[in-house]
Amino acid sequence: MSNDFFRPVSGFDLPRYAGVPTFMRLPHVPLDDPRLVQVQVGLIGAPWDGGTTNRPGPRHGPRQLRDASTMIRAQNGVTGVRPFEALRCADLGDVAPNPADLMDTMGRMERFYAQVRAAGILPLTAGGDHLCSLPILRALAKDRPLGMIHFDSHTDLFHSYFGGTMYTHGTPFRRAVEEGLLDPTRVVQIGIRGTTYDSEDRDFARAVGIRVIPIEEFHARGVTDVMAEARSIAGSGETYISYDIDFVDPAFAPGTGTPEVGGPNSWQALQVVQGLSGVRIVGADLVEVSPPFDSSGGTAFLGASILFELLCVMAGG
Amino acid sequence: MSNDFFRPVSGFDLPRYAGVPTFMRLPHVPLDDPRLVQVQVGLIGAPWDGGTTNRPGPRHGPRQLRDASTMIRAQNGVTGVRPFEALRCADLGDVAPNPADLMDTMGRMERFYAQVRAAGILPLTAGGDHLCSLPILRALAKDRPLGMIHFDSHTDLFHSYFGGTMYTHGTPFRRAVEEGLLDPTRVVQIGIRGTTYDSEDRDFARAVGIRVIPIEEFHARGVTDVMAEARSIAGSGETYISYDIDFVDPAFAPGTGTPEVGGPNSWQALQVVQGLSGVRIVGADLVEVSPPFDSSGGTAFLGASILFELLCVMAGG
Amino acid sequence: MSNDFFRPVSGFDLPRYAGVPTFMRLPHVPLDDPRLVQVQVGLIGAPWDGGTTNRPGPRHGPRQLRDASTMIRAQNGVTGVRPFEALRCADLGDVAPNPADLMDTMGRMERFYAQVRAAGILPLTAGGDHLCSLPILRALAKDRPLGMIHFDSHTDLFHSYFGGTMYTHGTPFRRAVEEGLLDPTRVVQIGIRGTTYDSEDRDFARAVGIRVIPIEEFHARGVTDVMAEARSIAGSGETYISYDIDFVDPAFAPGTGTPEVGGPNSWQALQVVQGLSGVRIVGADLVEVSPPFDSSGGTAFLGASILFELLCVMAGG
Amino acid sequence: MSNDFFRPVSGFDLPRYAGVPTFMRLPHVPLDDPRLVQVQVGLIGAPWDGGTTNRPGPRHGPRQLRDASTMIRAQNGVTGVRPFEALRCADLGDVAPNPADLMDTMGRMERFYAQVRAAGILPLTAGGDHLCSLPILRALAKDRPLGMIHFDSHTDLFHSYFGGTMYTHGTPFRRAVEEGLLDPTRVVQIGIRGTTYDSEDRDFARAVGIRVIPIEEFHARGVTDVMAEARSIAGSGETYISYDIDFVDPAFAPGTGTPEVGGPNSWQALQVVQGLSGVRIVGADLVEVSPPFDSSGGTAFLGASILFELLCVMAGG
Amino acid sequence: MSNDFFRPVSGFDLPRYAGVPTFMRLPHVPLDDPRLVQVQVGLIGAPWDGGTTNRPGPRHGPRQLRDASTMIRAQNGVTGVRPFEALRCADLGDVAPNPADLMDTMGRMERFYAQVRAAGILPLTAGGDHLCSLPILRALAKDRPLGMIHFDSHTDLFHSYFGGTMYTHGTPFRRAVEEGLLDPTRVVQIGIRGTTYDSEDRDFARAVGIRVIPIEEFHARGVTDVMAEARSIAGSGETYISYDIDFVDPAFAPGTGTPEVGGPNSWQALQVVQGLSGVRIVGADLVEVSPPFDSSGGTAFLGASILFELLCVMAGG
Amino acid sequence: MSNDFFRPVSGFDLPRYAGVPTFMRLPHVPLDDPRLVQVQVGLIGAPWDGGTTNRPGPRHGPRQLRDASTMIRAQNGVTGVRPFEALRCADLGDVAPNPADLMDTMGRMERFYAQVRAAGILPLTAGGDHLCSLPILRALAKDRPLGMIHFDSHTDLFHSYFGGTMYTHGTPFRRAVEEGLLDPTRVVQIGIRGTTYDSEDRDFARAVGIRVIPIEEFHARGVTDVMAEARSIAGSGETYISYDIDFVDPAFAPGTGTPEVGGPNSWQALQVVQGLSGVRIVGADLVEVSPPFDSSGGTAFLGASILFELLCVMAGG
Repeated sequence: MSNDFFRPVSGFDLPRYAGVPTFMRLPHVPLDDPRLVQVQVGLIGAPWDGGTTNRPGPRHGPRQLRDASTMIRAQNGVTGVRPFEALRCADLGDVAPNPADLMDTMGRMERFYAQVRAAGILPLTAGGDHLCSLPILRALAKDRPLGMIHFDSHTDLFHSYFGGTMYTHGTPFRRAVEEGLLDPTRVVQIGIRGTTYDSEDRDFARAVGIRVIPIEEFHARGVTDVMAEARSIAGSGETYISYDIDFVDPAFAPGTGTPEVGGPNSWQALQVVQGLSGVRIVGADLVEVSPPFDSSGGTAFLGASILFELLCVMAGG
Repeated sequence: MSNDFFRPVSGFDLPRYAGVPTFMRLPHVPLDDPRLVQVQVGLIGAPWDGGTTNRPGPRHGPRQLRDASTMIRAQNGVTGVRPFEALRCADLGDVAPNPADLMDTMGRMERFYAQVRAAGILPLTAGGDHLCSLPILRALAKDRPLGMIHFDSHTDLFHSYFGGTMYTHGTPFRRAVEEGLLDPTRVVQIGIRGTTYDSEDRDFARAVGIRVIPIEEFHARGVTDVMAEARSIAGSGETYISYDIDFVDPAFAPGTGTPEVGGPNSWQALQVVQGLSGVRIVGADLVEVSPPFDSSGGTAFLGASILFELLCVMAGG
Repeated sequence: MSNDFFRPVSGFDLPRYAGVPTFMRLPHVPLDDPRLVQVQVGLIGAPWDGGTTNRPGPRHGPRQLRDASTMIRAQNGVTGVRPFEALRCADLGDVAPNPADLMDTMGRMERFYAQVRAAGILPLTAGGDHLCSLPILRALAKDRPLGMIHFDSHTDLFHSYFGGTMYTHGTPFRRAVEEGLLDPTRVVQIGIRGTTYDSEDRDFARAVGIRVIPIEEFHARGVTDVMAEARSIAGSGETYISYDIDFVDPAFAPGTGTPEVGGPNSWQALQVVQGLSGVRIVGADLVEVSPPFDSSGGTAFLGASILFELLCVMAGG
Repeated sequence: MSNDFFRPVSGFDLPRYAGVPTFMRLPHVPLDDPRLVQVQVGLIGAPWDGGTTNRPGPRHGPRQLRDASTMIRAQNGVTGVRPFEALRCADLGDVAPNPADLMDTMGRMERFYAQVRAAGILPLTAGGDHLCSLPILRALAKDRPLGMIHFDSHTDLFHSYFGGTMYTHGTPFRRAVEEGLLDPTRVVQIGIRGTTYDSEDRDFARAVGIRVIPIEEFHARGVTDVMAEARSIAGSGETYISYDIDFVDPAFAPGTGTPEVGGPNSWQALQVVQGLSGVRIVGADLVEVSPPFDSSGGTAFLGASILFELLCVMAGG
Repeated sequence: MSNDFFRPVSGFDLPRYAGVPTFMRLPHVPLDDPRLVQVQVGLIGAPWDGGTTNRPGPRHGPRQLRDASTMIRAQNGVTGVRPFEALRCADLGDVAPNPADLMDTMGRMERFYAQVRAAGILPLTAGGDHLCSLPILRALAKDRPLGMIHFDSHTDLFHSYFGGTMYTHGTPFRRAVEEGLLDPTRVVQIGIRGTTYDSEDRDFARAVGIRVIPIEEFHARGVTDVMAEARSIAGSGETYISYDIDFVDPAFAPGTGTPEVGGPNSWQALQVVQGLSGVRIVGADLVEVSPPFDSSGGTAFLGASILFELLCVMAGG
Repeated sequence: MSNDFFRPVSGFDLPRYAGVPTFMRLPHVPLDDPRLVQVQVGLIGAPWDGGTTNRPGPRHGPRQLRDASTMIRAQNGVTGVRPFEALRCADLGDVAPNPADLMDTMGRMERFYAQVRAAGILPLTAGGDHLCSLPILRALAKDRPLGMIHFDSHTDLFHSYFGGTMYTHGTPFRRAVEEGLLDPTRVVQIGIRGTTYDSEDRDFARAVGIRVIPIEEFHARGVTDVMAEARSIAGSGETYISYDIDFVDPAFAPGTGTPEVGGPNSWQALQVVQGLSGVRIVGADLVEVSPPFDSSGGTAFLGASILFELLCVMAGG
């Protein structure tokens, strides 16, 4: 079996709006498929939003992102990278969640990603809300903490919600630090903004050594400078990339549950990913795309474009 | 304090699109308000969809129903009933859910309705998904089983989901029968339709004596005949009314998570409620209105119209 | 100049979605055009909603109705009538309103229709809100009262709003009766429904002899029977037809400001117009189409279909 | 390989909104897959609208119908038929069209269906516009004419458009009769309505013996009576079923390019298919679902429900 | 009664999408409430668009802004200001307009704001169209002219419309200057752009000494420089802030009646308000948010974010 | 007949949302109208998308652009140009396409523009997909090659699609160069971005001397610098302007079939046109506006604003 199996369907063979929509028109290779061993990068859907405290919807993200991703072609327009030739990529399907049981779902996800890791596959996840990142990190960082470059308008470092609920989409990285899955001194959070109840999250970040680059600093310094610092924080160690679509301004990405105005535009949304070049990426996710609030589908298309940029840097672009 | 306090704001004083939107422009009387003791019917929001196994959204139902309900005036066009003069009605606000903890939320809801019941208030609930009906029944039927007239396209009588999850919006009435909250011989389910995986729910209904009137029978017999049977099944005992908006055809009510085509139209949707006249109602709910799928707002307005009809029959109309 | 000038553009010559959109692709003949004298039926836009007390939008109705009306072809599918061959029809353009001055606009409208009447043209108006009917009646019924067949969910017979405001879309026919423009004994209102504040409008109707056929009677008797009575009430005298799109159920016509659920379907919406056959029509209007609430454009297309049916009966169909 | 391979994914294993969306969650079996020989019914997408003379969009139909079809479960609620147990069904993928070359695409489609027929597979097609039916019939009726039961608001029997263009979505059945693919005496068209330019299509139908049941007759006689006649016309011979979604009223199916108001409701839309029971079906299609005009997705879900009903009657239901 | 009464409901107590929506989840304190005397800043809805000459809709603004404002938390992300602790804020409800009588409504509004001023409350208004600013200024500037910093794409300085209509949303500040409510030498208008009929408005501005900063100057100089000049023009005197949402580019704020492309982005939309720090603000408004044109709700959320920024600078931030 | 005939209707005479919508409210002067000889600039609709290989819709562009263009007034806000006084402009109506025959339509278009050219009228076209530019160039550049300044995210320089299809919206300028309609050394393409299958288009550009300015260069250099180079490339010779709306970022212009994220904002979208000042323009088009994907109408309004800017530079602005 040659690489041809892993080549996406071309729009010249079948128009891009046609066909069964897998991520980027890649072959669908479930975990029990014998070809799994050949896969190098696995695109995975995490159709779950059980951690959402506000407007739900990201459980529909993977399907909509698959649909939009069929608009993506083979080559990066700016960097010239051709990821599907550089690496054998496949759509591994969706993790099966239990929408009515949060703890059960976290277990299901951790086990799925443990299998992916055991197969030596780099996971690129389409969420799902941001709580999804926690079970992924539990699987990927089981034996040593990872660094993380995190694009978001929120830190997701809160202690708990609703009088003691520890697992929501506002707490995953607090848990991850507590559980030793992240090395806080190698974590940077970029684009943080919006109103807050207090500064508890930023106090925690400061206490453990997480670097927060708020939006006013991002706008003042520009992408190049900020990303240089981000790469320096991540260093040469293994690093996870977590990209919350609400990092981007809601005019460009309305389809999300907790938007915050005043964010980056779509060009910057791609540029920051290009700025990851050289980082030793062990996995990445794009989360919080919420189709019910994405009436034009523009958020999903931007999300698919970001997934492609992530793939390009994972392919060494 | 006269009844005037409980009179909704008139559209001749303040246009109906204006003002802070409470249910039907009634006064907002939280549980800790001293005027609570005067309330006879309490409109309550249950902003929770933690039991949803498919498309979420009903947690936004109460707010959208409040908004749409400001279009409702004082008098029923068909029956002439004026419920706000017949009974002191108020908006009791929303039960506070914990969106990330299903069991915690069920407890919160049961305690809220226990307070409402203790205050002698008839609850009229705007959901929320259909699992909401379970904690409500736990509070209302604590000491004796109730009858129930249930409008829906689904029986919600399934045993469990996802390999053993007992609490979802597809299981509340199975649980309610098991817990002795409903007297199955006084339960009728009207409008049942759509594809199924198997007949497990209808087998259970048959086994315990619940009467299921499927849609083909509904269409063949007509509203008058069906509702005569429904009243006869409920009899003179205390009865709960549960109205899932997906009872109505999705052309009339697209804003719901699990639509089934081929349902009643909006005139029939009102008529069945008028057919409840004479039933001894101890509480009612309208559930599964899902604003993210209601692009025109028409589902919410139909839902508000149904809530008003329910109020009219609760007021003896 | 032959009738060819008045023949709509065929979809076989120019696809129906193309071209400058006039009503039914008819020629645009402004009041100062020399061809005006040849026109027999004039389609007129009344882009005004200054009488709206609730959700505005009908000022956009004429443009959207023009757009949707280009989907209409030449021949009635049921009756076989070919109105554009029976009568010389033209798009007379829009009455220029003053959106910020209600009384000024009523004067402008009355003068416009007086010119139309003076030219011997039958006006078929696309509103606009229902207050538009009042200045039209002032022009058409200047010298003797007319009968009226009125399709609506509201009687529009109220005395006043907001503490004495006499001119709103809820009062036009009260004013018209008071001003002697309508002969109440030759007026019938069909489809009336929805909640009300009180029965003041129906009391007035009863007092002056207007026949109100509420929706429950409409549904019980059916279109044929109801329209036979309507024709009998209108008799052989000159009669105005006023059709509020909210007569139709909001699932079929969501694009309107004051919807009421439980109304007729789209087949009945056409049938009632076919039931006008034989009535001596001196003018007609279709009002309250509100594009901002018509996300799919379906209301406008139904409205255009109703306008075509009206044209067919005006052409003797 | 047991039938289990052909069993759709259950919503209890993977929630219905999740996973790669194939038709009804069936396995994807392309024409070059060795399991093709086992397939009995093939669901096929025809993502092409090159024959559309008005508003395009049906090329997006197959993908949206796949998405909506994942809401379908295993068993028919009314008839109890379980088609996926009765027959081995699969998603055969999409025919690859050439969106910029009409004649090339017709050839591609005919060859695809010739392969399907050669494999002994019953094709159930999700269009695409109605011109798609012509190349399908060319493949299926190569050696003898078929009967046809056709649900539509248009006859699609016109001679030509735009001064001589023979292949559009308004001409497929004229061509099919001329080419001997249909036996006109065994063809019935149900639901015909809307304005027309002239009666050329109905004249042709009369001349060749096609039975047209216009909407006023459909409404007057009812589904049961009409379908009895339809079955009698089709007789015991091989029959093709063609279902244009614009047969249904646009309130229930707004997502189509050439709607006509006054049509059947969604219950009737299913009933007519149930009325096909006993017909010897050699293939079926559902066409003209146009996602760009289906803002709520309701048309696609109705379409998926109709596809399931078609599958049930093809399975002997 | 402590300040706690004036503390907004926390999202940790009741999720932000839940509850009766008041502005920023503040208590509703109508003008006749005894707690009015404690209020320092009053958020007020002006649900009126009677001055709109183009597309109506802002009458729905207050309700939608209330809804969106429940997403706002307690602390400014950039400046750290906590306005609800700095000042006692409340939702004073809506001014009751008369949608069918412009002059009556202007009187109602002026009287309402006179009461607010008499109570020593700083008004922060959510419009409504821009004509609303005129009666507000009549109440606030009764005894001396105010300065004004005005963000908009239009000057709203026109003389009259439609042949002499003096009161529209295009004329409020011409009237305000004529009536001595504004000191033109202390007025600056920022962001002016779009096509015009002529230069009459800018000629008037020049003649009376109003400083107009058109969009090309805004883009060339940047926010910091422009706002320094704005503060210098306003000086140390009492100043009103008027913010038309169409100041912002329509990609960020589509929900408005008279958009003009080429405007500031959402980050600049907030920055200009932060640049008001130090100005002696006696009242502020945010106008022209038009929900019918805001399909995603993004305009309302941006509007609510701007209202919060205004509150922060009013609180001395 | 004075210039007054060619003056657009003022919004002070008839509100801008009212009246039969022609381009910018100009008079409709079909090719057979005797006033054609006076026209200097003709606005023309090209309602055709037969060349679209992906999502169709631009055939609806001309009608929606006409509608949106009625919001345009008389004078450019930045440059002060008053094009309707500088030149006699008219709406020449739509070219009649044959939606089901690509080659026939290309012939129809070429003949239409040949007539326009013969009448000495500068054509400003509202598309339509980008293939429309080819027949226009065939008419305009019949006797000598033109220069071209081309704004787009795609080069549209591909050789062929789907195994040899030469005419699609991805190939017009390859054909135009091959046919000698364009002088490639006087062609510049600005804003090129997005993923590609390969570099065949850019290789062709390089080979024939077309200058491609990709988006990263555009963002790095800025509008002023880029447009100086563009003017220098076009030189003093006759030049065609082709503006694909997908040049602009999809947050500002979602209504298009093949969006690419990371593009210019709306201010830059206008600025680049202002940067054409001094170029010898012989015709211009704005293509690929696709109403079905433009739910807010914002793309059309931006498109109308760009058309006005084009008109202003054509008028010497």
